[in-house]
Amino acid sequence: MAKRRKSRFPAAERSVDSAEVRLIRIPGIPEIRTGDDLGKVVASAARQAGIRFRDKDILVVAQKIVSKSEGALVDLASVKPTAPAVALAERLKKDPRAVEMVLRESRRIVRSDHVLIAETHHGFVCANAGVDHSNVPGDDIVTLLPRDPDGSAKKLATMLRKWTDKRIAVIISDTFGRPWRLGLTNVAIGAAGVPVLVDLRGTRDRQGKVLSATILAVADELAAAAGLLMDKSKGSPVVLIRGYRYRLRFEPAANIIRPAAEDLFR
Amino acid sequence: MAKRRKSRFPAAERSVDSAEVRLIRIPGIPEIRTGDDLGKVVASAARQAGIRFRDKDILVVAQKIVSKSEGALVDLASVKPTAPAVALAERLKKDPRAVEMVLRESRRIVRSDHVLIAETHHGFVCANAGVDHSNVPGDDIVTLLPRDPDGSAKKLATMLRKWTDKRIAVIISDTFGRPWRLGLTNVAIGAAGVPVLVDLRGTRDRQGKVLSATILAVADELAAAAGLLMDKSKGSPVVLIRGYRYRLRFEPAANIIRPAAEDLFR
Repeated sequence: MAKRRKSRFPAAERSVDSAEVRLIRIPGIPEIRTGDDLGKVVASAARQAGIRFRDKDILVVAQKIVSKSEGALVDLASVKPTAPAVALAERLKKDPRAVEMVLRESRRIVRSDHVLIAETHHGFVCANAGVDHSNVPGDDIVTLLPRDPDGSAKKLATMLRKWTDKRIAVIISDTFGRPWRLGLTNVAIGAAGVPVLVDLRGTRDRQGKVLSATILAVADELAAAAGLLMDKSKGSPVVLIRGYRYRLRFEPAANIIRPAAEDLFR
Repeated sequence: MAKRRKSRFPAAERSVDSAEVRLIRIPGIPEIRTGDDLGKVVASAARQAGIRFRDKDILVVAQKIVSKSEGALVDLASVKPTAPAVALAERLKKDPRAVEMVLRESRRIVRSDHVLIAETHHGFVCANAGVDHSNVPGDDIVTLLPRDPDGSAKKLATMLRKWTDKRIAVIISDTFGRPWRLGLTNVAIGAAGVPVLVDLRGTRDRQGKVLSATILAVADELAAAAGLLMDKSKGSPVVLIRGYRYRLRFEPAANIIRPAAEDLFR
């Protein structure tokens, strides 16, 4: 067990010191269409806003525009619901075609009261398995989560490098609910170039005591910080985080998913 | 049900626009002792660092120094463990006196494998009911969560007003684990002067569709953002958030606690 943990995380590390962090909304992101090069779109919007990227900037991008650029959209008019979807939809008073999509996107339905809480194929637990109809043109179109959000983040980081010539880390975020606490918070579902979990176990506190249980979910804190500037009603899906100091690392956000067997909170 | 919800949250509101937010660590916070006026300590540290407070600044303060200032410390040498604590401690290979304190601080033990996950008397679910021995001088001293974190936040906001003459909102934070996702994130356990949950239900997305399920846990996102600059190994328990635009509100962080009956995620 101890060994398994060691292999999952890098050696104990001190989080690098930051004195000030800036969160900057990138304005003027247009409606994104399938096939758009998000790196180019973001680089161009930043340039127009007078924002010049720097190495080690972190870009937090809402899942919705990533899904749109990748064509992860489904027209419900084309969906034929199966019998389980029809039955569930009837009980929940929902569109059976939308429920069908939730079932297709899910590995497991966690709860199905008036909201469907599902575990996606990636392992994320969230409402409707990420199937969402907000901020999508057309009444019958829904977006799905990106197939491989870590891959999407890596690809976007590569395209940003191409268009800006800077090493920019990327986090792809979505707003998830959680047990015990009300409200949604923005969390990381994909990452490239930035630490996802920072393991402080083995380092010492101010009194010299060894910290025994401190692994920080840094990517989720970065996503939450960016969430303060994302406004669904205004179309602000891209936030730049500057000044957060970190060690360059390609660690997938999938590392955040808690193995079920180790989930003491369940 | 709809009515109950309405009474719990204010009317649907648009989150106020912010274009840039700054997270600023306040350096030079000394070791805090029982009875210290935290408002005075923070005002003085900020002054020394050349940081001048402004109205609507938000101060995020780690629970640990609030507990210390309030004397929420227990010397385990004075604790006589009860039989249930002794039995549980034996099974978990923990100090029975520390386990006794966890039981005293808990309304309910959620899980007791190698870590104790407990629901505190406030209703927060976290490891060891917040009983913690890190960053406390002395091997046998533990800190407890503040009795009334919202009251502590209000008191600190009042003292900050006295010492700075500015209206500064306060969030008291702690790092909590959570189900399904690994790692700790900084969350709000007390608040004064800043919205805790922002209800966007009834507002419209960019396409004009009504957002149906969007309540943002703003206080948790603010706490998480500040968490990026709090470093347990360096003693950085106070972070200033500037530029986040909000409507002045006295809403308790206790509002974040999800009523068990409505907790679809459990």
